[in-house]
Amino acid sequence: MSQLIVALDMMGGDYGPSITVPAAVQALSLLPDLNLLLFGLEDELAPWLSRFQLDKHSRVQVQYCSQQVGNDDKAAYALRHLTDSSMRNALNALALGRACACVSSGNTGALMAMAIRTLSTLPGVDRPALITRLPQIGGGYALLLDVGANISCNAEQLVQFALMGEQTAQQTLGITHPRIALLNVGAEANKGNEAVRQAGLRLREHAELDYSGYIEGNELFLGRADVIVCDGFVGNVALKTSEGVAKLLLGQRRRSGFLSKFLTFCLKKRLSHLNPDQYNGASLIGLRASVVKSHGSAGSSAFLNAILQAVGQIEYNLPASIAHRFDTALQDSHLR
Amino acid sequence: MSQLIVALDMMGGDYGPSITVPAAVQALSLLPDLNLLLFGLEDELAPWLSRFQLDKHSRVQVQYCSQQVGNDDKAAYALRHLTDSSMRNALNALALGRACACVSSGNTGALMAMAIRTLSTLPGVDRPALITRLPQIGGGYALLLDVGANISCNAEQLVQFALMGEQTAQQTLGITHPRIALLNVGAEANKGNEAVRQAGLRLREHAELDYSGYIEGNELFLGRADVIVCDGFVGNVALKTSEGVAKLLLGQRRRSGFLSKFLTFCLKKRLSHLNPDQYNGASLIGLRASVVKSHGSAGSSAFLNAILQAVGQIEYNLPASIAHRFDTALQDSHLR
Repeated sequence: MSQLIVALDMMGGDYGPSITVPAAVQALSLLPDLNLLLFGLEDELAPWLSRFQLDKHSRVQVQYCSQQVGNDDKAAYALRHLTDSSMRNALNALALGRACACVSSGNTGALMAMAIRTLSTLPGVDRPALITRLPQIGGGYALLLDVGANISCNAEQLVQFALMGEQTAQQTLGITHPRIALLNVGAEANKGNEAVRQAGLRLREHAELDYSGYIEGNELFLGRADVIVCDGFVGNVALKTSEGVAKLLLGQRRRSGFLSKFLTFCLKKRLSHLNPDQYNGASLIGLRASVVKSHGSAGSSAFLNAILQAVGQIEYNLPASIAHRFDTALQDSHLR
Repeated sequence: MSQLIVALDMMGGDYGPSITVPAAVQALSLLPDLNLLLFGLEDELAPWLSRFQLDKHSRVQVQYCSQQVGNDDKAAYALRHLTDSSMRNALNALALGRACACVSSGNTGALMAMAIRTLSTLPGVDRPALITRLPQIGGGYALLLDVGANISCNAEQLVQFALMGEQTAQQTLGITHPRIALLNVGAEANKGNEAVRQAGLRLREHAELDYSGYIEGNELFLGRADVIVCDGFVGNVALKTSEGVAKLLLGQRRRSGFLSKFLTFCLKKRLSHLNPDQYNGASLIGLRASVVKSHGSAGSSAFLNAILQAVGQIEYNLPASIAHRFDTALQDSHLR
């Protein structure tokens, strides 16, 4: 496929077309080579497309569907019954080679299940992982995975996440030898649960990896590692807790005085790179194609960032580089 | 026992007597009724006691020991071989009724194992839990447990933590009907792991509890619950992550200009109630007596706060009130 084509689920998230359509417009104007495939319910999507004149745009194709995935829909239900949903059709387009990446801000569980069904995981990958960037104290980013796609993980899966994270850091952050760490409750070898301890032992056996041991929650932002691996329950709580603290600091003791307003302004500036709008877009990696999950509460600039992230992954050809990494690892018989 | 006596492990933590001795001096001067039993290695402790004239203090008794628990010592090793350690002797004093509460900043795993061995859990309590306070956006505190004593927990244990947390909130925060929540990765009933979902179902059966469902990491500080329950892995990561974000905000872009210094000063003021020194002291609850775990890196004002917290628990008679709660629950056949 020579064209840069991204499939967008226009219905997911808390606001649907009211934020996905303006984001699509911005993406098209920023990237002259970008083509979009849009999926949604006609009743809801069409008025927004017409308002923003996307229905006549030369680089846009629209496909209306009869269903959408709700935030409360169980993955198994969505998989079986919502086969004409915007999410499923966007993923189908990817599987059929009509698009190179897909963005959705819908229900994570359903997206994960449908992505596995339509795209399959890469050879050697048990489960895809949701990966996101964390700002670091000295500048730059670290990658955290899994942040919610896999609630519990065994040692083998954590090791696979480390390999996928390594590739993602090399491709998207440009770090030649990413330092890899496991998120744990202490630095000592005997800390943590069985899965984390076993994963630590196995990562030490991968001589080609720069594995640096355990790090704790208070070290997530200190620049001590480039790839931080944990199960999806722990990663989700860590990510959301950091958002919660940022909100706590911004939200409290807000008074109407000039000094207070000035301080809040300065604090917001300091917090800007922790702004969910800026780092919105967690990628589901380990699949045969790129899927980006936008925050359910994302606004249009946040959804735009998720689209840009999908474009970046197409340019880095991330799935192929992860596939190559696992191919090598399988040949080295390290993994199995 | 009519006297207010606290046993202190003077050796634990990163700094030992250099911070525990000044903290003991301050506590004695703040509380005229307080008596202290101090445990430590003579070589290290005696010079500090003499420098601060605690060796001759009328309300201080010193007992020298031959061992101390190291940060890297495994719990099983400490339990079997460090029977004359300062930590073990401090807990023994509690078990023998020579003191009413104990404070240590030593190794959490060893403290947990030794506390269970010497003090036993209360009837109906499987495992003690480490509980701490989290500042809330509208003022006041919520309690979070477990923050690291139990790496993985089943549903029954999470339910027990909820009951212990309820009592602790009633006694120490003065909240008559504490709102209880489970920390999870989403609000919907199908989210999370099996233990959390089962605990949620069982908490709904406790009609006398004000159980309000799941909350996520970003809601930890929003005042939505008074008692937040999770396993020790998740709680430890959540607590430490919130400390990490606070440090990230204070530490970055620190420049030498006046404006930058002024901003950092103001930010520190805003962050003051997130200052680990102020909320230092997680309590190990569910035992027959009060044990307070101070942060390993606590300074002397933080260790002082842990001592004051231990005194508070003696005054509230927290173990007796938890025992009474479990007695009622057992009688109601809710728990088993």
